[in-house]
Amino acid sequence: MKRYVFFISDGTGITAESFGQSLLAQFDHVEFDRQTLPYIDTPAKAEQVVARINSCAAQQGIPPLVFSTIVDEAIAAIVSKANARQQDIFATFLAPLEQELQLHSSHAIGKKRKIDENTHYSERIDAVHFALDNDDGARTRHYDKADIILIGVSRCGKTPTCLYLALQFGIRAANYPITEEDMEDFRLPAPLHPYRHKLFGLTIEPQRLVAIRSERRPNSRYASPRQCQMEIAEVARLLEKERIPCIDTTHFSVEEIATRIIADAGIARRLK
Amino acid sequence: MKRYVFFISDGTGITAESFGQSLLAQFDHVEFDRQTLPYIDTPAKAEQVVARINSCAAQQGIPPLVFSTIVDEAIAAIVSKANARQQDIFATFLAPLEQELQLHSSHAIGKKRKIDENTHYSERIDAVHFALDNDDGARTRHYDKADIILIGVSRCGKTPTCLYLALQFGIRAANYPITEEDMEDFRLPAPLHPYRHKLFGLTIEPQRLVAIRSERRPNSRYASPRQCQMEIAEVARLLEKERIPCIDTTHFSVEEIATRIIADAGIARRLK
Repeated sequence: MKRYVFFISDGTGITAESFGQSLLAQFDHVEFDRQTLPYIDTPAKAEQVVARINSCAAQQGIPPLVFSTIVDEAIAAIVSKANARQQDIFATFLAPLEQELQLHSSHAIGKKRKIDENTHYSERIDAVHFALDNDDGARTRHYDKADIILIGVSRCGKTPTCLYLALQFGIRAANYPITEEDMEDFRLPAPLHPYRHKLFGLTIEPQRLVAIRSERRPNSRYASPRQCQMEIAEVARLLEKERIPCIDTTHFSVEEIATRIIADAGIARRLK
Repeated sequence: MKRYVFFISDGTGITAESFGQSLLAQFDHVEFDRQTLPYIDTPAKAEQVVARINSCAAQQGIPPLVFSTIVDEAIAAIVSKANARQQDIFATFLAPLEQELQLHSSHAIGKKRKIDENTHYSERIDAVHFALDNDDGARTRHYDKADIILIGVSRCGKTPTCLYLALQFGIRAANYPITEEDMEDFRLPAPLHPYRHKLFGLTIEPQRLVAIRSERRPNSRYASPRQCQMEIAEVARLLEKERIPCIDTTHFSVEEIATRIIADAGIARRLK
């Protein structure tokens, strides 16, 4: 029997979900049925949520788990009546913070967007367009403006990582695929020479690369174990010879790859 | 005087940051100096963090705020000795959850990635490549596979929203720009006809569009108030006539636009 879990917010629900998921991840042997309910920002919607939770509780004979970030006190009060085990970030942490800062908080929803609206918005969007324009070695003439340039074999995770760096942190990330032609004399491709200090390598285990490439082009040379192994070995040799820092992406999510690169390369985030 | 704030984690730091930021956003009149310290996963690193926090506390004569998500109990114990006002998600919520689930949690770092590693990884990467391949009306022949198709004038936020939907939720989002040529007879562009049920409009206030376009092409007709006003008015008329749901992106962050579209359009997330 799966335990029902609700992530509830009067905003996007992103914090409620990330907070709840990080706690639930600690319980390996429990199966959860997760639902995210964002924008619960009227008493009517809150009452519907309560009805839904109570119906799950009645159906299973056990109260669901609720992780919430509800800023509005009236809405939070309604949701808190539900038959559930509730963990609310604001209910728990806001009062001690108010005391510490000797201020009343504004209890207003959607405060976060202020950060984005002005300078941050364009940093972020510029970074996204930078990543798109400088994806997959398409163009190299703007590498002087890049914060970082990811290199590695095709399909090792360069593009999603660049986009994540752009969207989440406003970092201008380019990427350049190392292909067989580049490997002929085991030298760094010429366009990368002036930007050696910005390079960061992505590596991957051959088995995983075979799986990823096979989804795209099944039974091709491109996806064959032999080809994948060879490309990976050659890139590893190049990275080592050129002393370029690198990370093995095999067991990491895009979030982990991106945040580890920031930490390892010591690049500054443009969004805070 | 800015109050020092540290977001500390033995993982990516994303949850610590999102949790802390959502609380700090409630205090309008306080200035914060924020630092994220991810991957604090050894006692040595934790000791360095303590030294850094204590030095900030000594310098300002007031303890910094710390928001942390530290799974490892030994590391958490070290950080908790720092001279700071500390809010720790795991310290606060893990014990009640263990009791509720009648289980001991594993207290292991980086559990979250398990979610990503298998089926989720390819859903997500496929969605990113789908967004890239179907960006800006480049191709329309895969619209049958799209979960949603965003339409709107150039630079109203379509591309970042599609990429965010892909990266965060594994949703396959295409986008199609409505241009002047399309508007000649106020009809939906032909390639969109079969997919009317998947369309979602993005609108924007003219002033904001002028600002965004001016950064790209200053003093151009493209960025002129008259042109922006006209395009926006025409698209608004089209959306109304065709009864296509829409959202005004002017005051929203990419996260908000994306999560509101999911909620309004009722599309299923492929990642949970």
